[in-house]
Amino acid sequence: SQRKKIAIIGGDGIGPSVTHEAKLLLEVYRDKAGLPLDLWELDLGADRFLRDGVTFPKEIQIAVQRECAAVLLGALGDPRVPGMEHARDILFGMRFGFDLYANVRPVKALSDRLVPLKGRGAKDVDIVVFRENTEGVYVGMGGQFKRGTPDEVAINEDLNTRKGVERIVRAAFEYAKRTGRKRVCMADKSNAMRHAHELWLRVFDEVRREYPEIESRHLYVDALCLLVIQDPTQFEVLVMNNLFGDIVTDLGAALQGGLGMAASANVHASDPGRVALFEPVHGSAPPLAGKDIANPFAALLTVGMMLTYLGWPDEERRIERVVAAAIEEKACTVDVGGTLGTRAAAAWVRERVAREL
Amino acid sequence: SQRKKIAIIGGDGIGPSVTHEAKLLLEVYRDKAGLPLDLWELDLGADRFLRDGVTFPKEIQIAVQRECAAVLLGALGDPRVPGMEHARDILFGMRFGFDLYANVRPVKALSDRLVPLKGRGAKDVDIVVFRENTEGVYVGMGGQFKRGTPDEVAINEDLNTRKGVERIVRAAFEYAKRTGRKRVCMADKSNAMRHAHELWLRVFDEVRREYPEIESRHLYVDALCLLVIQDPTQFEVLVMNNLFGDIVTDLGAALQGGLGMAASANVHASDPGRVALFEPVHGSAPPLAGKDIANPFAALLTVGMMLTYLGWPDEERRIERVVAAAIEEKACTVDVGGTLGTRAAAAWVRERVAREL
Ligand SMILES: CC(C)[C@H](C(=O)O)[C@@H](O)C(=O)O
Ligand SMILES: CC(C)[C@H](C(=O)O)[C@@H](O)C(=O)O
Repeated sequence: SQRKKIAIIGGDGIGPSVTHEAKLLLEVYRDKAGLPLDLWELDLGADRFLRDGVTFPKEIQIAVQRECAAVLLGALGDPRVPGMEHARDILFGMRFGFDLYANVRPVKALSDRLVPLKGRGAKDVDIVVFRENTEGVYVGMGGQFKRGTPDEVAINEDLNTRKGVERIVRAAFEYAKRTGRKRVCMADKSNAMRHAHELWLRVFDEVRREYPEIESRHLYVDALCLLVIQDPTQFEVLVMNNLFGDIVTDLGAALQGGLGMAASANVHASDPGRVALFEPVHGSAPPLAGKDIANPFAALLTVGMMLTYLGWPDEERRIERVVAAAIEEKACTVDVGGTLGTRAAAAWVRERVAREL
Repeated sequence: SQRKKIAIIGGDGIGPSVTHEAKLLLEVYRDKAGLPLDLWELDLGADRFLRDGVTFPKEIQIAVQRECAAVLLGALGDPRVPGMEHARDILFGMRFGFDLYANVRPVKALSDRLVPLKGRGAKDVDIVVFRENTEGVYVGMGGQFKRGTPDEVAINEDLNTRKGVERIVRAAFEYAKRTGRKRVCMADKSNAMRHAHELWLRVFDEVRREYPEIESRHLYVDALCLLVIQDPTQFEVLVMNNLFGDIVTDLGAALQGGLGMAASANVHASDPGRVALFEPVHGSAPPLAGKDIANPFAALLTVGMMLTYLGWPDEERRIERVVAAAIEEKACTVDVGGTLGTRAAAAWVRERVAREL
C-alpha cells in the first residue's frame, strides 16, 4: 500500500503532551488533507519501564523497522530512572539500531524577537547541522578501572570509522548541493585529538574535492562556538561528530529562541526508504511536565521535517510559516514571549494550518 | 632571593607582538613600581623549530621549572608547521610537564558594549572557568587502525583519573570559597559518556559535600552552552574536563568581546610555589601577524592574572580597570570597536597604569 505508518512515542516528562499536539496536527493532515497516514501509538518510556521492566522490546523494534516510514518521539528521561537506561535503550536503540547516521538539526530562527544577539534578526540565523549519529563517544566503549579507589581510571573512547565519517560528510555536501546552500563547514578538534580527528580532516579533504562548487572549510570546534555567536550568517551547513553536534545544536537552539523551537530528524541519508526518527531537540524537562506550559512548537516543526521526509516538503514550509506567525502574534508559550499554554498554542497553529489546507 | 623570574615566549603569528606589549607593561611594573621582576626572553616557536629543529629542549624545561615563578606565553601555531608539533611540544610540555592541572579562564566582560546579548551588559558576565588541563582527550591516547583503507578505525581515548578529577573539582570549590563566589556548576556529558563522566559526577558529588555553604549543581555540557547564552548571570564558577573547558571558554570569549579580551592562567592550584603558565586564550592568528592590528588586551589582562599569582592582586584589578577605560574611550583595536593599532592601544593602557603607580 502507499499508506505511511508512523510510530508515535510520547515518552517521559513533557514528551507525551507535546507529542499529543504533534499527533493532532498529523491527524489534521490525515483527515483534512487526506494524506495517507496511519498513526500507531507505542506505550514506551519510564512509566512502562517501571511497570513491567520493558524498554524497547525486540519485536517492537522489528515491527517499526518493517512497517513504519517514520517514528515521532517526544522526549525520554525521568528522575525515577536514575541511569536513564530506558531512555538510552529506546533512543540509541533507534539511532544505532536503525543505523540513522545523520542527525539533521536546523538552526533556524523564525522571528527577530527570538534571536538573542544584538543587531541580529531571524534572517541571520539559518544553519543546518549534520551531526554524526552512530559513532563517537556515544558507542559506550571504555570502562572504569579500580572503581571507587584513589587510583581509579575511567575511560570513554571516541570511535570513528572511515565509513562513518565519510557518509556523514557526504550527506552534508549532498544536502548543500540539493538545497542550493553554498557553504559547508566541518568542526573538529584535530589540534588535540590527533588520531580520531586527523581522520575527519583527511576524509573531509577528500570528499570536498567532489563538490568544487561548494565553499568548504574546517574550524576547530572551540572557534566555531565563538564565531557562531559573533556572526552566524557565515554558516550554512555544518558537519561534525556526535558529541560536538550535540553541543553545537544546543548552542544553536539559543539562537532560535531556545529548545522549545528546535526540531530534528535522524535519518539514514543514503537510503530514504528506511524508517527515520523525528524528535524535538529538547529533553523531557520533568519539572515542566503536566503543567500545560511546555512549548509544543519544536514538536510541530518536527512534524514538518517528517512531512518533507515522507514526500510533502510544502507542508514543512507551511508549518514553519504558521509557527512564525504564532510567534509574531504572541500566540505562544511563555518561553518564547507569549501567554498561552501548550494546548492553546498548538491549537492556534493547527487551526491555522487546517484553514489553509 | 625574593626576585621573581619570568620566562617570556612570544611564539608565533601575533604572539610576539602582543607579548612584546605585555613585556613592556611588566617593565613598567619593574622600573616604575619597583616590583622585583627578572624578565627572561626565550626564543621558541615555529621560527626556531624551522631553523634548528628545536621545540622545547629539556634543559630549558628544567631551567624554567627550577628558576622561574611564571611563564608568559603569546601564542603558538604556524602554517609552515602543519602538524603543529612545536606548538604541542611547548604548550603541552608546560601544561603536562609542569603538571599545571588548573586552566583558570575568567569570562568577564569589561564593557557593556562588548556583550553581544540583547538586554545584557558587563555586569551580567562574570564567570570563572576551571578547565582540567592534564587529562581527557588531550593525553593523546588512541590510534588509527588500517589507516587509509575503507576499513579504517580511528580512536582517541578520554582518560580521567580519580586524582585528576578530584583536584580540579576541589580547586573550583576552593576558589569559590576564597573569593566569596556562591555557586559552582560542573559540566559533563554523563548521559552519554557513562564511564568517564560517571566518575566526574561521583567525585563532584563527594567534593561538594565538603562545601555546604556553596550552591552546586551539574549540567550536561550541551545544556550549559545554551543556558550561558540565555542567562549568563546564573553562573559564577564552572568546572569541567579539558575538552569541554576548551569549548566553553571560547564560547565565553564571545560574551567578553572576543578572543582579544580573554586571559588565562595554567596553575598547579594546590602548590602556589610552582611555576605557572599565563597565556591569552587566543591563538597565533597568522593572517593578522605583523600588521599591528591584533588586540593586545588579552595579553595585558594575562599579565594581571600573573601579578595576582605573584602576590600583587591589586595590580590585576588596576589593569582590568584601565583596560575597561580604554574600551570605554575607544582607545582600542578594531575588533573591540576602536581605531588604534596593537602598539598604540597597549601604550594607552601602559601609560595610564604608569601614571597611577
Ligand atoms: C539525552 C542525550 C543522550 C541526547 C544526546 O546527547 O544525544 C540529547 O542531548 C540529544 O541531543 O538528543
Ligand atoms: C591550540 C589548542 C591545542 C589549545 C587547546 O585546545 O587547549 C587552545 O585551543 C587553547 O584553548 O589553549
